[in-house]
Amino acid sequence: MKRLLTAAVGIPAVVLLTIYGPRWLFVLVASGLSALMIEEFLNLNAARGRARPGRWFPVLGALVTAAFAINFSMVCSVLALVTMVLASAGVFAHSIEKVLDSLTSGIAALVYCSILMGFVILLPSSALLTLLGIIWAGDSLAYYGGRAFGRHPLAPVVSPKKTVEGAVAGLVGSVLAAILIGIRLLGQSLLPMAVAGLLIGGVGQIGDLSESALKRSAGVKDSSSILPGHGGILDRLDSLLFAAPIFYWFLYR
Amino acid sequence: MKRLLTAAVGIPAVVLLTIYGPRWLFVLVASGLSALMIEEFLNLNAARGRARPGRWFPVLGALVTAAFAINFSMVCSVLALVTMVLASAGVFAHSIEKVLDSLTSGIAALVYCSILMGFVILLPSSALLTLLGIIWAGDSLAYYGGRAFGRHPLAPVVSPKKTVEGAVAGLVGSVLAAILIGIRLLGQSLLPMAVAGLLIGGVGQIGDLSESALKRSAGVKDSSSILPGHGGILDRLDSLLFAAPIFYWFLYR
Repeated sequence: MKRLLTAAVGIPAVVLLTIYGPRWLFVLVASGLSALMIEEFLNLNAARGRARPGRWFPVLGALVTAAFAINFSMVCSVLALVTMVLASAGVFAHSIEKVLDSLTSGIAALVYCSILMGFVILLPSSALLTLLGIIWAGDSLAYYGGRAFGRHPLAPVVSPKKTVEGAVAGLVGSVLAAILIGIRLLGQSLLPMAVAGLLIGGVGQIGDLSESALKRSAGVKDSSSILPGHGGILDRLDSLLFAAPIFYWFLYR
Repeated sequence: MKRLLTAAVGIPAVVLLTIYGPRWLFVLVASGLSALMIEEFLNLNAARGRARPGRWFPVLGALVTAAFAINFSMVCSVLALVTMVLASAGVFAHSIEKVLDSLTSGIAALVYCSILMGFVILLPSSALLTLLGIIWAGDSLAYYGGRAFGRHPLAPVVSPKKTVEGAVAGLVGSVLAAILIGIRLLGQSLLPMAVAGLLIGGVGQIGDLSESALKRSAGVKDSSSILPGHGGILDRLDSLLFAAPIFYWFLYR
């Protein structure tokens, strides 16, 4: 129920921002989300007893996502620079035994959250809406398909409720959405969009499973409680993080 | 003594490769060094009980460095892709409790080693030789200056033998080398090269201290025993990793 309510506010807000929002606001929101995900990623590591960089780090890490609004050269530069700033902070840290943990968790968060999220900024709004439609359709059909027909567990250790049948239903949903939305919004033809739907649906499900694996590995249920019923931003955007680079390559290579 | 011997072979080899080596060989060597550093970085983390990705991972990680030979877009793509492959491997891992550790240390190694090392590939051989000269002059004068005049400890917790006097002598060495080599090889004028020497000498020393902090944080003395007396590739290239991006920005922005 809480989940439905958040979705009822969240989905229209995202769609409106994507279509009508000014570019700077979109970049700001994407970077802000990346900062929140970095915080969650650090907390997952902290749950396994790993020291983390200071409170300032997620804000600095968001700059890596924002750099995608300029170009890839800037992305690499900001990534290198933030890494060096973090490493320098380690030199002057109070407790030497925390330095390696903190550097390691910090850098990993930069890539898993900021770099992957950055590809979202590269997509024009029509492509991003298509991508979101593919992911949402896949998620929904996986959920209801799994409830209706689910019998064989997909990855019982990582995500006990997911089934092979649900995964297949999700792929069908993603392909249908890709065809229906992609042809209209992107002017693409049927076959490429069917392939894109299959690819994005598959990669999105892997992103979803990966994030579940990380949570389970950390021994926590939710990566944060920012979104009620959604288990954290990282949990909500896990498919998007993996699907965005793939869709970018699909469209622009 | 072992250190001198390795240097007597290593320095001419690096200089010859930089000047006369074919481009592909240079990229191959740089990527190979990055794979070795990834392995060392993972071992540092393993010394603190963090699980690591499989033996295949450093080889995959070297591709991130090699991608610098193409362009920054390729670097971001390969970085994202290797991250996703590592995350996917986690979904199918045998022991779920190791997944987060392994992903975290793997991604961090990619950036600290492969991304920073990649900037070395972007420097033309004249610039790389200048950079190496600045670093070697800085290292040497810091060592001998510290032995002769060293009194005030620089960062006792991280690197007990380093002194403020040694660091200053190192900076002087870096500035002198930047002026002497940079004017001749790069056709730059005196003032910019003095600034570059100061900048690179300073950042190189921070890279050096950072790597010492990581080793000490991991509780190990050497990151590996590949180079006798040099304490590992990561230890030998620590200044270069930090100085290369800075020199690249200095020359091409």
